[in-house]
Amino acid sequence: MKPLRIALLGMGTVGSGVYQIITKHGRELAQRAGRTLEIRQILVRDLAKPRPVDIPSHLLTTDFSQIVADPDIDVIVEVMGGVAPAAEYLRSSILAGKHIVTANKELLAKHGQELLSLADEQKVHFHFEASVGGGIPVIKALKESLVANQVSKVMGIINGTTNYILTKMASEGTHLETALTEAQTKGYAEADPSSDVDGYDAAYKLLILGSIAFGSRLDLSKVYVEGIRKVTPIDLEYGHQLGYTLKLLAIAKDTPDGIEARVHPTFIPNQHPLAAVSDVFNAIYIEGDAVGELMFYGRGAGDMPTASAVCSDIMDIARDSGAKKACSCLYTKNQLAMGSTVSRYYIRISVLDNPGVLAQIATAFGRSRVSLHSVIQQGRGEPVPLVFVTHEVSEADFTQAMDEIRALECVFEVDNIIRVEGEA
Amino acid sequence: MKPLRIALLGMGTVGSGVYQIITKHGRELAQRAGRTLEIRQILVRDLAKPRPVDIPSHLLTTDFSQIVADPDIDVIVEVMGGVAPAAEYLRSSILAGKHIVTANKELLAKHGQELLSLADEQKVHFHFEASVGGGIPVIKALKESLVANQVSKVMGIINGTTNYILTKMASEGTHLETALTEAQTKGYAEADPSSDVDGYDAAYKLLILGSIAFGSRLDLSKVYVEGIRKVTPIDLEYGHQLGYTLKLLAIAKDTPDGIEARVHPTFIPNQHPLAAVSDVFNAIYIEGDAVGELMFYGRGAGDMPTASAVCSDIMDIARDSGAKKACSCLYTKNQLAMGSTVSRYYIRISVLDNPGVLAQIATAFGRSRVSLHSVIQQGRGEPVPLVFVTHEVSEADFTQAMDEIRALECVFEVDNIIRVEGEA
Repeated sequence: MKPLRIALLGMGTVGSGVYQIITKHGRELAQRAGRTLEIRQILVRDLAKPRPVDIPSHLLTTDFSQIVADPDIDVIVEVMGGVAPAAEYLRSSILAGKHIVTANKELLAKHGQELLSLADEQKVHFHFEASVGGGIPVIKALKESLVANQVSKVMGIINGTTNYILTKMASEGTHLETALTEAQTKGYAEADPSSDVDGYDAAYKLLILGSIAFGSRLDLSKVYVEGIRKVTPIDLEYGHQLGYTLKLLAIAKDTPDGIEARVHPTFIPNQHPLAAVSDVFNAIYIEGDAVGELMFYGRGAGDMPTASAVCSDIMDIARDSGAKKACSCLYTKNQLAMGSTVSRYYIRISVLDNPGVLAQIATAFGRSRVSLHSVIQQGRGEPVPLVFVTHEVSEADFTQAMDEIRALECVFEVDNIIRVEGEA
Repeated sequence: MKPLRIALLGMGTVGSGVYQIITKHGRELAQRAGRTLEIRQILVRDLAKPRPVDIPSHLLTTDFSQIVADPDIDVIVEVMGGVAPAAEYLRSSILAGKHIVTANKELLAKHGQELLSLADEQKVHFHFEASVGGGIPVIKALKESLVANQVSKVMGIINGTTNYILTKMASEGTHLETALTEAQTKGYAEADPSSDVDGYDAAYKLLILGSIAFGSRLDLSKVYVEGIRKVTPIDLEYGHQLGYTLKLLAIAKDTPDGIEARVHPTFIPNQHPLAAVSDVFNAIYIEGDAVGELMFYGRGAGDMPTASAVCSDIMDIARDSGAKKACSCLYTKNQLAMGSTVSRYYIRISVLDNPGVLAQIATAFGRSRVSLHSVIQQGRGEPVPLVFVTHEVSEADFTQAMDEIRALECVFEVDNIIRVEGEA
């Protein structure tokens, strides 16, 4: 069988990881695929830039048009990141009949529907295992291994930077700024950390996971996104007392009313498998009607884990195996606005240290049908903190209760509100 | 495209799970595969036996020869269990050109090499995702998603019965017999529990996992197998003090000297991801050179989780995707005897409560080059317990040290020896 001829778009950390794997394990990969993998061209911005791996200079080019026009290229591996010009490059590559492998979550979240449909029209492979969870094979699991399941829930820790920050804050009692600076020093967070810290990176990945899990394309503009900036060590300490661990969770649920998709700081019971996922590790927890609970755990980022996933996609194309259709959405399901969802909540309030205050607040909750699961009242002082955890409540009822509580004279401030998943 | 026509061998819990999934999700599966799945025949022992699901009587047969001779059967799904007659049925089915899906770990551990080679000769699919870890897609992960990795280690909690028993013993301080009886009452353990409790079930599964992970067929007779019968609540309590959790681990390592494969009770550090896997849950932890650490977690048994995996295999055949070669062994690697391995050990000894006893034992360890990681000496009495945890030591040195210690006059008895993986 003739070699599979590859062009890499981009030679950053992931690109050089892919190059290294194909160079180092080439013989074994060829035996397993029944054909050799051959990197023919590599698109870079600057031919002269020093690179982490030694690459023969004849492979490098700055001219994409030469790659797309080359009939000897079978597969385009896009590891350059960003939306432009990657979207345009992939569009023209598909139209030129080339198979696609990409690790680009933002591109998929924003242009996935169009690109996947185009790939199906042109009957080319379009794989994107590396776009979510680095080396964790969750896309293939959802598309192939869980094909006999109706998936009802996907919950993921899919941003390593924020998981590292939250783990540090919980174990050392530090503030977000301190933990973020440490993450930046260690290279786990970028100089501008907003895509991670504000939840957008997780939202892109959730859009991909949810669309595949439920067979219905999610709409990015309807995904609720809340980052971790308002998390404080005090809240982590109260959560600990209540039996909860705080994680930035990306949650998608297929409910009878529609699909919920949201990213926010979330208290989960300590005994939940996701609670034990620390540091930069990622994990995706899935519930299916046949398989029950599943969880996939591993390194969600990094050059080699991500390159491992990219190479498995390349091998699927070399063997012409893996799910054939690029787009796996069979349905068009309704996607719920956040206001139509139900949640459990943790609320921390500063109140006057007077008799009857707890009763006033509890009454306000009750009037809006908000039922309480637990309360912490301890210490004295002015103001004194009160912490509540509710049972499941509609967004509308909860908002009404909180409006009423904010207006009470005994209430100084509502200090924090954090969602809760599952019973502790 | 014409329907994929299926014969089920066996209609126990897994068989009826498969039947239910194909009946319930048939329309969606057909859309995803591009063809319908059709169950044409079901081999049973007794036509009149009442079944958990309602099955049209014309599908049932007691005659395998009729199934194998039927040119209208494309796939044989073996969910009957046991080695005979399943091995013979699969052999003749492959020779008749039929694709195979099986959930039968014992059959694969004992006849896998022959059957997989035969399938490759006959160019038929042979899938067995359900044979390890129930609904957890670990076989596909190893064969396809980790194809670009050199896997160095696989460690699994792959027997739900013993994990349930060990979880109960640890959380309630009960003895093995009590926890086993409870497992039997709940249907988690069979009336004759020896295949689970003595480690054979885990050994069959380890043989499958290790062979795929390292690309080299393991030899069942060289797998070290030790069950959980000697585990006591006292050892669990000492382990807890030392920061360890006890699990029945199936461990396979690819070392420069050869492959190690062993099943035994194992203390692992509490912070290891496997330590949090409780009750009947299974998990498989993998280390690869590119991907780093990965873990797959889920229900390792049960009718529907196992049927979920069987159906994903059927779908791979319907789409003609999934790894094409049945046998993925490219190499013939040396498999180490247990005597040639290194381990860490937990040792509990009853000794005379005299001055100088600890020094005598520590000296004996030292003479055999056994270096100690931690020691617990607490309480008084006659005898008094001493607990040691060693660093890594060769089997030969360790045996020599223990022989010398057993011969000391101050030593009443060596009460228990349990292996340890990883630093606490």
